Amino acid sequence: MSPRPMVRPGGRSARVQESVHAAVRELVGEVGRDALTVPMVAGRAGVTPSTIYRRWGDLQELLSDVAVERLRPETEPADLGSLRADLDAWAEQFLDEMASPAGRAYIRDALLGDSDGTNAGKCSAYAAEQLDAVLSRAVRRGEPVPETELLIDRVVAPIMYRILFRPGRLDTAYARELVTHALSAV
Amino acid sequence: MSPRPMVRPGGRSARVQESVHAAVRELVGEVGRDALTVPMVAGRAGVTPSTIYRRWGDLQELLSDVAVERLRPETEPADLGSLRADLDAWAEQFLDEMASPAGRAYIRDALLGDSDGTNAGKCSAYAAEQLDAVLSRAVRRGEPVPETELLIDRVVAPIMYRILFRPGRLDTAYARELVTHALSAV
Repeated sequence: MSPRPMVRPGGRSARVQESVHAAVRELVGEVGRDALTVPMVAGRAGVTPSTIYRRWGDLQELLSDVAVERLRPETEPADLGSLRADLDAWAEQFLDEMASPAGRAYIRDALLGDSDGTNAGKCSAYAAEQLDAVLSRAVRRGEPVPETELLIDRVVAPIMYRILFRPGRLDTAYARELVTHALSAV
Repeated sequence: MSPRPMVRPGGRSARVQESVHAAVRELVGEVGRDALTVPMVAGRAGVTPSTIYRRWGDLQELLSDVAVERLRPETEPADLGSLRADLDAWAEQFLDEMASPAGRAYIRDALLGDSDGTNAGKCSAYAAEQLDAVLSRAVRRGEPVPETELLIDRVVAPIMYRILFRPGRLDTAYARELVTHALSAV
């Protein structure tokens, strides 16, 4: 759950992270992202500002970590009985979530405070894990399946590219078209 | 050339933009991006800091505008006599430039100081214009061609997605594989 190697689940470090993340989420809801400051977050979380600076460097890095946590999928992809149905549902939900105003803000935050690419890599790993789950299920059903990396290139990448760089086309029909095309490879 | 509607080519506004952009490029080379400040850029460009704040808002927005200028292609894509050869060459060069340390820094800058997506949209428009030029040439040769948006989805998007989110695979073989796949549609 935590991006820092020194964090042990249940330890003090994990508790600090949890309370600081919770403070950010609450304060973003109350005062908005633009009004957020490190002392404000520290006050709400019950830690000193220097604890936050020491651990996260600055507010942008903290917002990046919080965003990645928010982008982490909470459930397994739905099992609808076939690869096609599972992928359609997953792609539609992925597109809906990422292209929503909240999703766009999280993607942006995740990238901005992430100078070494660790958090961006996590976002991509989350998508790959969900696709792996869908593909493993299809293999157990005896269906032919494409590679995960092919689905990344043909379904995930176009959606994320259009969200970041090229507005338009981001609807359910587009998600299904990408899935149809990706599955034409198997 | 300019992102601001009030800029007329050759007018004072255009001259200010040119001198400020030049100052940023020089100073990034001399002191590095992280040491850059608005007063430093203003001093070098011979304008007041308030001119920069009024026009660009803050340093991040200025860096975004400079980055987009740097990402603007300077030449037409090479004419190598066939759609396949032109697209291979274009995709390899696009990948090389975007995945280079300088390219990554520009993409990052372009996205970071770009809250309304205007600059990201320009980056995408540059790629689309280059692809349009390649496709128009192929049409004049009598070759069958795919849609520009299909090339965006199948060649540009995977490259940009992997640069931003998923390291690895960014080599010439990958660029050619994407082109092969995109052309299998026609």
